[in-house]
Amino acid sequence: MDMSPLSPFDIIPVQKFSAEVAGVFAVPEGSRVESRPVPVLRLELEGAVGDRHFGFTRKSTSREPWYARGTVISNTRQVTILSAEELAVVAGRMGIDRLEPEWIGGSIVLAGVRNLSFLPLGTRLIVPGGPALLVAEQNGPCRIAGKAISAHFEGRDDLELGFPKHARRMRGLTASVERAGALRAGDRVDIMVPEQWTYRA
Amino acid sequence: MDMSPLSPFDIIPVQKFSAEVAGVFAVPEGSRVESRPVPVLRLELEGAVGDRHFGFTRKSTSREPWYARGTVISNTRQVTILSAEELAVVAGRMGIDRLEPEWIGGSIVLAGVRNLSFLPLGTRLIVPGGPALLVAEQNGPCRIAGKAISAHFEGRDDLELGFPKHARRMRGLTASVERAGALRAGDRVDIMVPEQWTYRA
Repeated sequence: MDMSPLSPFDIIPVQKFSAEVAGVFAVPEGSRVESRPVPVLRLELEGAVGDRHFGFTRKSTSREPWYARGTVISNTRQVTILSAEELAVVAGRMGIDRLEPEWIGGSIVLAGVRNLSFLPLGTRLIVPGGPALLVAEQNGPCRIAGKAISAHFEGRDDLELGFPKHARRMRGLTASVERAGALRAGDRVDIMVPEQWTYRA
Repeated sequence: MDMSPLSPFDIIPVQKFSAEVAGVFAVPEGSRVESRPVPVLRLELEGAVGDRHFGFTRKSTSREPWYARGTVISNTRQVTILSAEELAVVAGRMGIDRLEPEWIGGSIVLAGVRNLSFLPLGTRLIVPGGPALLVAEQNGPCRIAGKAISAHFEGRDDLELGFPKHARRMRGLTASVERAGALRAGDRVDIMVPEQWTYRA
């Protein structure tokens, strides 16, 4: 086995920049997908207070086919982060005048991040003096969210399948809370992208 | 702002391969660094039972200078994963005949992984029918671990600073438990490296 390490020249250094919170939402208990705007999103280390995804643990779903469905696992899907710019692009592709973040269960909408859905795993989003989030994964758009969108557009049942198609790789990120705090629209978020490299087995 | 997404051709697909557990260890309460071999490592979603890093939360240290020291944050440093092959390389660089994983507080030693310390953030290590781990970060070698090593080699006080120098990017990974279970030497671990891409702000 070749144990030679990567060259340090292959490592992309940490990147830092800022963005703005455009909106905050919570998914009430009993809601299948949709979230509702809230004036303040109170983030504890278990997740967002009043959101049904709150908890250090959750049950696995079809998104984790490597675990038997319903296995209790650690919860890295506490919140869903969306991009205002990506939502507009996806709405355009789907031929609708707007795509509201609450229709697809967004928790936080950020404005001003290039390719938000491609922020790498482990990226930190830190509000000075406020909460901090740790990016878990790129989210995958599903038919259930598509159906929730189609309910807002009469005669557009096609949106149920159109959303998974047009929102692929533009459906934002899942994240967990690393530091507790309150989040509001207008807050500045400092984004810290970790070192990146390419691993090949 | 350019919102064009990455080309799908820039995305490196998921990689899967297997490795073997060479040893398991726990850091007892009261130990500064060193771990001790255990016959079985019982992993709960909070971490390793009987290890002082157990818990959904921990206090931040100088490793997270972006948080005030002592801030309660989510605990992604529950366990430390080391590579048998990297330990041998580092020992050779330091001019010592061996570098035991327990001297530097290793929880799990794996054998057969190329460049283990470069497994990307979000990599899953899954024991079939057993526990699963989620890689948090590449670990950084510190003087405290160096001093613990030097205690095993008379007249080699240089190892205290030699370790941070020679083990850079070969000090393994930190990880948290995603699925509970018992881990033993000889277990097979299925490694799933997530999709990779390069993000540029």
